[in-house]
Amino acid sequence: MEGHILFKTIVLPVALMGAFAGAHADEGQWQPHQLPQLKAELKRVGIEIPAEKLADLSKHPMSAIVSLGGCSAAFVSDAGLVVTNHHCAYGAVQRNSTPEHNYITNGFLAKTRAAELPGGPNSLVYVTDKVENVSDRVLKGLTADMSGRARHEAVEKRIKDLIAECETDKMYRCSVPAFHRGLEYYRIRQMMIRDVRLVYAPSDKIGNFGGDIDNYEWPRHTGDYSFLRAYVGKDGRPADPSPDNVPYKSKDFLVVSAEGLKAGDGILLAGYPGRTSRYKLPAEIRFARDTAFPLKVAELQADLAVMADSTNGDAAAAVRYASVVKSINNVLKKTQGLLDGFARKDIAAIKDVQDAEFRAWYAKQPNVSATLLAELDAAIASDMALSEEEFAWSVATNSDLLKSARTIYRLSLERQKADAERESGFQQRDLAFIKARLARLEQSYVNKVDQARFEAGLKRYAQLAAKSHPQGLDALLPAPTAVAALYQQTQLADTAKRLAWLEKDQAAVAQSDDAFMALAIKLQPVETALEERRKEIDGNLERVIPQYMQAVIAWKKSQGKPVYPDANSTLRVTYGTVSPYSPRDGITKGPFTTVEGIVEKVTGKAPFEAPQGLIDAVKEKRYGQFRDPALGTVPVNFLTSADTTGGNSGSAVMNKRGELIGLNFDSTYESITKDWYFDTAITRAIHLDIRYMLWVMKEVDHADNLLQEMTIKYPKPVKAAKK
Amino acid sequence: MEGHILFKTIVLPVALMGAFAGAHADEGQWQPHQLPQLKAELKRVGIEIPAEKLADLSKHPMSAIVSLGGCSAAFVSDAGLVVTNHHCAYGAVQRNSTPEHNYITNGFLAKTRAAELPGGPNSLVYVTDKVENVSDRVLKGLTADMSGRARHEAVEKRIKDLIAECETDKMYRCSVPAFHRGLEYYRIRQMMIRDVRLVYAPSDKIGNFGGDIDNYEWPRHTGDYSFLRAYVGKDGRPADPSPDNVPYKSKDFLVVSAEGLKAGDGILLAGYPGRTSRYKLPAEIRFARDTAFPLKVAELQADLAVMADSTNGDAAAAVRYASVVKSINNVLKKTQGLLDGFARKDIAAIKDVQDAEFRAWYAKQPNVSATLLAELDAAIASDMALSEEEFAWSVATNSDLLKSARTIYRLSLERQKADAERESGFQQRDLAFIKARLARLEQSYVNKVDQARFEAGLKRYAQLAAKSHPQGLDALLPAPTAVAALYQQTQLADTAKRLAWLEKDQAAVAQSDDAFMALAIKLQPVETALEERRKEIDGNLERVIPQYMQAVIAWKKSQGKPVYPDANSTLRVTYGTVSPYSPRDGITKGPFTTVEGIVEKVTGKAPFEAPQGLIDAVKEKRYGQFRDPALGTVPVNFLTSADTTGGNSGSAVMNKRGELIGLNFDSTYESITKDWYFDTAITRAIHLDIRYMLWVMKEVDHADNLLQEMTIKYPKPVKAAKK
Repeated sequence: MEGHILFKTIVLPVALMGAFAGAHADEGQWQPHQLPQLKAELKRVGIEIPAEKLADLSKHPMSAIVSLGGCSAAFVSDAGLVVTNHHCAYGAVQRNSTPEHNYITNGFLAKTRAAELPGGPNSLVYVTDKVENVSDRVLKGLTADMSGRARHEAVEKRIKDLIAECETDKMYRCSVPAFHRGLEYYRIRQMMIRDVRLVYAPSDKIGNFGGDIDNYEWPRHTGDYSFLRAYVGKDGRPADPSPDNVPYKSKDFLVVSAEGLKAGDGILLAGYPGRTSRYKLPAEIRFARDTAFPLKVAELQADLAVMADSTNGDAAAAVRYASVVKSINNVLKKTQGLLDGFARKDIAAIKDVQDAEFRAWYAKQPNVSATLLAELDAAIASDMALSEEEFAWSVATNSDLLKSARTIYRLSLERQKADAERESGFQQRDLAFIKARLARLEQSYVNKVDQARFEAGLKRYAQLAAKSHPQGLDALLPAPTAVAALYQQTQLADTAKRLAWLEKDQAAVAQSDDAFMALAIKLQPVETALEERRKEIDGNLERVIPQYMQAVIAWKKSQGKPVYPDANSTLRVTYGTVSPYSPRDGITKGPFTTVEGIVEKVTGKAPFEAPQGLIDAVKEKRYGQFRDPALGTVPVNFLTSADTTGGNSGSAVMNKRGELIGLNFDSTYESITKDWYFDTAITRAIHLDIRYMLWVMKEVDHADNLLQEMTIKYPKPVKAAKK
Repeated sequence: MEGHILFKTIVLPVALMGAFAGAHADEGQWQPHQLPQLKAELKRVGIEIPAEKLADLSKHPMSAIVSLGGCSAAFVSDAGLVVTNHHCAYGAVQRNSTPEHNYITNGFLAKTRAAELPGGPNSLVYVTDKVENVSDRVLKGLTADMSGRARHEAVEKRIKDLIAECETDKMYRCSVPAFHRGLEYYRIRQMMIRDVRLVYAPSDKIGNFGGDIDNYEWPRHTGDYSFLRAYVGKDGRPADPSPDNVPYKSKDFLVVSAEGLKAGDGILLAGYPGRTSRYKLPAEIRFARDTAFPLKVAELQADLAVMADSTNGDAAAAVRYASVVKSINNVLKKTQGLLDGFARKDIAAIKDVQDAEFRAWYAKQPNVSATLLAELDAAIASDMALSEEEFAWSVATNSDLLKSARTIYRLSLERQKADAERESGFQQRDLAFIKARLARLEQSYVNKVDQARFEAGLKRYAQLAAKSHPQGLDALLPAPTAVAALYQQTQLADTAKRLAWLEKDQAAVAQSDDAFMALAIKLQPVETALEERRKEIDGNLERVIPQYMQAVIAWKKSQGKPVYPDANSTLRVTYGTVSPYSPRDGITKGPFTTVEGIVEKVTGKAPFEAPQGLIDAVKEKRYGQFRDPALGTVPVNFLTSADTTGGNSGSAVMNKRGELIGLNFDSTYESITKDWYFDTAITRAIHLDIRYMLWVMKEVDHADNLLQEMTIKYPKPVKAAKK
């Protein structure tokens, strides 16, 4: 197997899970099983839970940590009560809001279980219960002489088999993500709970205080928390939403500590970070910095402008696109932040130095491949070139209706194959998701806006460099002036009709006279060609990059430096300390903000509005048990040096005993480049202080039922400080 | 005498110089003689110099502190070497700069005494050598039944007599400023050295780094220092500038300490703060906030716009007005800062509470005047009404030529009187200043700009509320359309001709056919009427306010609160600690910036340019003996809680032993309201760290001759920290 070939070629004593000494940064999104190797580090930051216990997903506290699919969360009672970010539960709040019951503005609190509201098809709770190293089964027998595409398809096939084998029990959802860019594969089994209800969300004047203006910013004053509850069938197994379901008996949950923390205290953070690029090569960083990200920023800005223009004066249309706009703005701010960060600090140059050091070290190792680094550079160059075409393709097809048509047609094609042979994403196990996605479009779709986006996208596509135009595509695309007619000749905007297509077979779809279906069919060969080239390139990358990563790991190990895989939406643990940072000379930010800062920011206009009850409580200094002795008031948000990224939203922030003391929800603007390079000096994650959440629940929202349900450790009473 | 009457009326055991307990803020611009009453405070901040020594102006270190007239400074060698701010010596630098020798951009360093350059008539060094309490002589025999004007004129006459008596020795310049708004008067005798030369100024890329953008801002990275030297005649007495003069043998000077300081360290600051308004009544604050300052901001903005417009495309004209624009911008930023501060914190409301408390306390005191507070309110109301007219007058007469003509005519009128009878400012002792001012106009005057300012001012005057138009003025002013003709019919723009008028008598001036002279003569009755009303009102204020202040002092003393007089350009001492501050929740600023922060700010475009030699020294970490052990690099600026204001520019910042460790040069934007209300939490003065100055002198400008001349205490050598 190629895995073995790798070891034979490099012949290095690489023990991926081996101990390494000398790591002193809080960098690292660790696989739980790596934690026993980090005892010295955990001790340094003051964590008291034994590392072996932390590594065991079946034990407290890790068994209380869950995924919401894109967000992280934790159980906080034995009755399936889940706490996560407000922005992670926002869809559920929005879905249940009406002009009469505006839960977005007014918040929502179910005083009884019966009053809890359905979260909708997008509200899911994943409980990870098993992680197995399946690297051998994925990589065994792959040979160096296979074509990229053959290798990629072999890997895909094995992964699908591993998933199918795991999902024989329908209560599980399984996945086999790659680690270290394909050096290792783990099979992850999760129980997917699909009846998830909204229990409590504060007003967005608390949960989204500061809005897009404060997004990625510090000082921050956002009460970014909400509560959901997982429901299962009476048999205790996940079930479709039903009034007959019962709260899930969570075998583990986090104790909530109102005892607080202070600058310098160590914390643990557990969740599902989405994606990082810490091991990218300098050429990849330069491509992102000089080509991909600037193109992406321009594209997102242009698309936002089109949406703003085409919803201008139409409040109903604007509302439908509000969450699309919000989400694009978030990506835009992050991408712009990356570019700003790259401009501020020449990360490519830093990586150049590291890369040169690595190559010098590599050249001195015995029995290593003489061609590996050249192959690596070639594979990456191909990857970058293709990604420009993929970007152009996405610009040219910027229509939700076209995307729906492409999904429908592709599904009809895949359905002609046996399930195991189908493309990943179009198997039987994916159907419910496809259906939910096509149904959900209704909430964020308006014909004229989609048409404007499609037309404008086609015009922008025409402006892109010729070399990025996928072969044959230009001839197949409609002229921008012909787009309006397409919208006259389609019924895909009708949700029922759109969903009905999912039931039809390939022959029926192929005969459709719907203009978007016809366009999707016409474009399919281009998409297929791009996909096949992607497979070839990915296959080559999957062959070369793991060898490179293995060498890098050996090199880093030789320096005593930590080796953790890039984030890939799997469960990770990070640790750090409560600490301020200096964004520039002469200024220090954090580590805490306070409720007084909310009042300071309030202008009375969104996003700087706060409920009057909150303002009154602050002005009357009704801090109750949530007053921090050092700050003299209730903390709102705080900063730590923990290593997080998107997907870590809602992650439990725990004290040294594993008690919940915060929720992760953001990072500072200066930290955005951490996805590419972790700069210990300035990288800070932004957390909600759980004392603020408890204080709002007590003093503002009177969520006494939930305060009762959770297990809360209050600080020992102290005499009130004299004024 | 009225002073006695006051005491009789109020009958309070007021000992103005008595001790007071319980003061814990760093508020206070103390008269040196008050310092022995502040021993506990000086001890709290760690000052080791005995208070009695600090109080003695003839002893070290106070005898090393000098005034430049508007700025503060200190001797740093026994040969008259003076260190002050770059912006305080800017006029001398500008005056000596030519296109061939651009000392502004390139800096200037005299390697020998012979190479030192004349500072010009505006460069003066005042050495304070005697301060006497002359309250009795000013106030004796004044009675409550005198009219305001009679009282004011009596006070003015006595002050002039006191000055004349003091200035019999021509080497002295004397003044009798009021303290506590007229409760006390001190006669201050200063030796005025009038041959002052430019010794060394760094490039404005150092001395004015950050320029107007960073003015009043933190983080700050300005090397705001320059060196002058005082020269006297061979007899040791002040003399007109002459090559025969010799360096002044300064009997005292400050030792410079490169030993540095750290957060929390106590400091002393000595200098000449210009003016504060700490004891204003709520009505006065509201008038400033709601009327006077908004009018002033609008006026300054409009005037700046006219100057920008009329110098647009004319580089030579723009250069001539550069320092006028800079100075107006500074006042504008300060005034806007006051308005912002008033908006952020309702100082009037705070003063309302204090005022109500005071009035309640006052009502309970035995034998106090029943009418005092009503008289006070009435006097202040009259003052505010008149000041609106005075403002309108200044708007209507916004022409440097008209101001020159008014000065010339007024001087000719005053000259008809005996010297002692003349209006203050037009006596024999003032002639040299008048002449210097009329001569200096040449450097910042262009006909078309002055004309545009005058025309625009007249138009703005017409827009001001009718009640603010001084009686009779409207009929006397030229129409804006008639202004151009005035500039055709004047020769006052010619400096020689302008100065020649100073020699002429009243009859000659009255017969002038110069259009501006004629206008000045026509306007004189309006100006005189305003002045007479001002005297009446000031006389009333001078009668009432001291009684009020005496009561306030007694009241504050009853609370153990400090009692220091408002700043009045006399020598004061303040103390404080090196300390950061929080401008808003979640952010801390200061206390130090570092040389790395300069490189961080450099854009290569003014005002963010730095000499390449400086950038190189930073990048090569050539910190030498000036590396701060805690910061690991050379500090640039730092913040303290000391109580400063305009006029404190260039003030010596001293450590606990009275050694020079910094120069005051600015305060933070949030501090601007301190002139009206000292908010301990946010008020911070910005100082140059003397280590930065010494480092630039050593590593960048190679000013070894001056480093040799000064007495510098270097830190004990320590091993360089490992990286």
